[in-house]
Amino acid sequence: MELFTTNNVWMMICTALVFFMHAGFAFLEIGLTRQKNTINILFKNIFIITVGLLLYYLIGFNLMYPGEFNGYLGSIVPGITPPENGMTPMYANGGYTWWTDFLFQGMFAATAATIVSGAVAERIKIGPFMLFTILYVGLIYPVAGSWKWGGGFLDDMGFYDFAGSTLVHSVGGWAALVAVWLLGPRIGKFKDGKPQAIPGHNIPLATAGVLILWLGWFGFNGGSVLSADPELTSLTLVNTCLAAAAGGVVAMITSTIMYKNLDLTMFLNGILGGLVGITAGADIMSPETAILIGGFAGILIVLAVAFIDKIHLDDPVGAIAVHLICGIWGTLAVGVFSSEHSFLTQLIGVLCYGAICVASSFVIFFVMKKTIGIRVSEKEELEGLDVHEHGMDAYPDFRLNEH
Amino acid sequence: MELFTTNNVWMMICTALVFFMHAGFAFLEIGLTRQKNTINILFKNIFIITVGLLLYYLIGFNLMYPGEFNGYLGSIVPGITPPENGMTPMYANGGYTWWTDFLFQGMFAATAATIVSGAVAERIKIGPFMLFTILYVGLIYPVAGSWKWGGGFLDDMGFYDFAGSTLVHSVGGWAALVAVWLLGPRIGKFKDGKPQAIPGHNIPLATAGVLILWLGWFGFNGGSVLSADPELTSLTLVNTCLAAAAGGVVAMITSTIMYKNLDLTMFLNGILGGLVGITAGADIMSPETAILIGGFAGILIVLAVAFIDKIHLDDPVGAIAVHLICGIWGTLAVGVFSSEHSFLTQLIGVLCYGAICVASSFVIFFVMKKTIGIRVSEKEELEGLDVHEHGMDAYPDFRLNEH
Amino acid sequence: MELFTTNNVWMMICTALVFFMHAGFAFLEIGLTRQKNTINILFKNIFIITVGLLLYYLIGFNLMYPGEFNGYLGSIVPGITPPENGMTPMYANGGYTWWTDFLFQGMFAATAATIVSGAVAERIKIGPFMLFTILYVGLIYPVAGSWKWGGGFLDDMGFYDFAGSTLVHSVGGWAALVAVWLLGPRIGKFKDGKPQAIPGHNIPLATAGVLILWLGWFGFNGGSVLSADPELTSLTLVNTCLAAAAGGVVAMITSTIMYKNLDLTMFLNGILGGLVGITAGADIMSPETAILIGGFAGILIVLAVAFIDKIHLDDPVGAIAVHLICGIWGTLAVGVFSSEHSFLTQLIGVLCYGAICVASSFVIFFVMKKTIGIRVSEKEELEGLDVHEHGMDAYPDFRLNEH
Repeated sequence: MELFTTNNVWMMICTALVFFMHAGFAFLEIGLTRQKNTINILFKNIFIITVGLLLYYLIGFNLMYPGEFNGYLGSIVPGITPPENGMTPMYANGGYTWWTDFLFQGMFAATAATIVSGAVAERIKIGPFMLFTILYVGLIYPVAGSWKWGGGFLDDMGFYDFAGSTLVHSVGGWAALVAVWLLGPRIGKFKDGKPQAIPGHNIPLATAGVLILWLGWFGFNGGSVLSADPELTSLTLVNTCLAAAAGGVVAMITSTIMYKNLDLTMFLNGILGGLVGITAGADIMSPETAILIGGFAGILIVLAVAFIDKIHLDDPVGAIAVHLICGIWGTLAVGVFSSEHSFLTQLIGVLCYGAICVASSFVIFFVMKKTIGIRVSEKEELEGLDVHEHGMDAYPDFRLNEH
Repeated sequence: MELFTTNNVWMMICTALVFFMHAGFAFLEIGLTRQKNTINILFKNIFIITVGLLLYYLIGFNLMYPGEFNGYLGSIVPGITPPENGMTPMYANGGYTWWTDFLFQGMFAATAATIVSGAVAERIKIGPFMLFTILYVGLIYPVAGSWKWGGGFLDDMGFYDFAGSTLVHSVGGWAALVAVWLLGPRIGKFKDGKPQAIPGHNIPLATAGVLILWLGWFGFNGGSVLSADPELTSLTLVNTCLAAAAGGVVAMITSTIMYKNLDLTMFLNGILGGLVGITAGADIMSPETAILIGGFAGILIVLAVAFIDKIHLDDPVGAIAVHLICGIWGTLAVGVFSSEHSFLTQLIGVLCYGAICVASSFVIFFVMKKTIGIRVSEKEELEGLDVHEHGMDAYPDFRLNEH
Repeated sequence: MELFTTNNVWMMICTALVFFMHAGFAFLEIGLTRQKNTINILFKNIFIITVGLLLYYLIGFNLMYPGEFNGYLGSIVPGITPPENGMTPMYANGGYTWWTDFLFQGMFAATAATIVSGAVAERIKIGPFMLFTILYVGLIYPVAGSWKWGGGFLDDMGFYDFAGSTLVHSVGGWAALVAVWLLGPRIGKFKDGKPQAIPGHNIPLATAGVLILWLGWFGFNGGSVLSADPELTSLTLVNTCLAAAAGGVVAMITSTIMYKNLDLTMFLNGILGGLVGITAGADIMSPETAILIGGFAGILIVLAVAFIDKIHLDDPVGAIAVHLICGIWGTLAVGVFSSEHSFLTQLIGVLCYGAICVASSFVIFFVMKKTIGIRVSEKEELEGLDVHEHGMDAYPDFRLNEH
């Protein structure tokens, strides 16, 4: 009972920290985009966390953790009524209560759509994005999640993803990739085939966002131990922080060498890349390996951002590089660095998630594109989504530059 | 001893989270008002938390928790010297130490004045507001609090208010109502009898404020269990988050239907309304009921904001709608949804708090109005309180619009 | 095992809170300086936390906690491989795991350089600052720290510094003093020998920074108990918060009397002064004494800021007053107010730290000044470091005042 209480306290704190990541995502996203779309982005993020929680209550939780099931698709059972002994102190082997379990997982669920939000910023229609959020957070995320964390077929195969490099980050990242491709770049992003910088309007908020996300990762990874086990939780935190530091420093050095410029944004994205990269194996790596994984993620970030620009995809916040590329890297790294896990199995897991996410997000976005449309008008894009979709300015007392 | 340590850890974390709510209140309030009064608002908020803590140390704590007393009014005993066995591990049935108890309750105390701060923003003189804070946080809040949480007459009657829908939020809300009425609206708020929008100057900060407040509510409600009891704390957090989500979504839908506009501010206030609403019964409701209570609070918010405008009260941040109206609703909802509590008793409790708060805040503000004055000069209001009361600008490097 | 798990949970949470202080420092520093140097300051802060952690991993941790050593200088042992029984549950008498120990101490280490960052803001070259950070965080901080916390000669003497008024804050403060002196004031800071106000560009962020720092101090001091001992941790938190409140209120009153102005910045720095002041003895003072120590720190802050101006040192954020002056005060206060500690020993400790910090930071900065140079060009200073060192603007969508 004492240990159970302690475990549950740890899990509740981690839940709070993961909740707070939504503030981090929101800040990062508005910071790296233009002021004229700020309200729109905040609205999307608030929508995601509120609707995401309610959907996870309504269908997601039971769909993702169906108990005994065929391994591919659980059933829709509304609500979160605990199983008969769900309220007893010893749920999940004494790790937490049923309620804590729901809330912790619910905070994770909303993250997938948040990742997409950043990639499609400044040009997506709000209505279709809301619809996508409902379908992706309500259905795709929990079904895909059930394959591993719900005890489905990938879990049976031995696929390993500790805290969601694949199950959360790449799930968001794949959809971001599809959405960015179907949406097309922002007006002015490519001129004569060359990518143009569209600077973010509030770098202090973007930096705050990254620091809040790093803080939140204490809960994201630390809570994924699913108990307060001292050795596992504290090793996980050490690995998480060292990978973040290594990712940032290496990305900073790499981008300084490549561009002769001390680029803060790259530094920040390197930190996030390191965090995403270590997420799949944070509990089983040594600190040395965590630094390697994070550092390599730092190189990947810089190269991936350049590559995505090169193939004329427009991802304003670097979400694809951070969450998809580093998510894949982290998942494969488990196969590379851990003798207990197979690279092939890890690769199969990555591909399975790629398949369901690309397919489902393509269907959702393509159908919307052909029917209700997914992109705002040129006029609206130029004048900003805040005025047109929300009738509000983010900073009405400040004089602003038009661009 | 092990359980006691865990309980105390939980309570200390909750204390830290409730402390952080003061950052949330400050951000929300400056975000929803004009830049020319930013320093003034921050000053008020910093004043409230620092002076509030010292007052609670000096007189509040013993006044609110007098031990054996007549049930209406405790005595003033300066300091927080523990009772003879207060330092022993088993204080409060092993829930926390004497010191933790003081600090957790002290963080609550300052909240009452913070709520008022938002409602009277942009036109109240700083001196009288400081005086009000001292009297209200130092005397009224703890005396009123002793009636229920100190074991006073309302506790004897069976009145229930888990974490303070009434004891904290409506206590602030009633004073906000009185103050707004005595102060009058800001210049330009009503033109030919019609309410005019005065847009807030920094919506990202306002949004951050709401997310920080939501985070803080993990501690506000979670800590009100007064131990780390796994089932109660985790059910409380689930109810808190679901009510917040429901309040936000319902307010967003309601205001979209009424005003054909995806209004971020209403979305945010809906979240706060849901949080305030669930606070009275967060530990005894089912998740389903929590969603109902939060959702109804979301409707109330939209209607109450419109109604307050209509009766020509000017509450720049919606504090009355959020804290008073939803505070009352949440308290009554305990009588409606819980078979173990009587609606009538809940109503009596609401009225008793209304009586002491309206009476005391009226006396305080009315006497000040007739003597030292409570409202800044027209010139000062137009030019902003920052320059006149503080000799500082909040954003000196930015070019600003005058209005 | 139960108690150990709880202890470790507390220490991990405190680690997270201390990590978050880096966001507080960053916000405070950019808020109190001009927008044209914002990116530069954020870059420095992100550099400090990432590189600081990696250095602490590489050499700092073993240098600071060498086990058996001569009491003055440990040895460089790369990595953080646990001692043979370091991973067993009972490390540090059951207080935390080896990993938690490293991470908690690592978060502290980076703080020293952060303090300097504020004092040298707006005119230091980024390269030399990065070099200083590496040397100071990587070598000086852990060596100096080993003298007391590593069980070195000052520990043997009975010197007391609970959470680092001297070991962290004055270590940063001394280097800040030396750096400010060698750098010289910002252009325009002194006109005809008179100090000119250079207002900070974003006071809401500065205020947020202080509130985040206060929150972080729950972990900074609370975690320095090195276990979750209920009485010690909760008394520490009460003392920390009361000292912060008293420091703020007294500084506000003092500055209002001296300057007839409700100065928010002084209020904020008073809070920080109170926090730094109580840090050396937060676990052994009564709440009454904590208020005294914090309150006196509040007076010191106002006087020290005036004095530093008077001797023509330019410290944009008041770091020397806050961290050095109040750090010394807090350390000596242990000798004044605690009958178990000697004033003389405390003074000797202060002087020893002054000696190593002044000497080492003088050598580092002086050599750099005579070789690579430590100050940006006049043109760069006037136009801002953001454009010149980073090629980025912090707020590209806003129209700005030139100054």
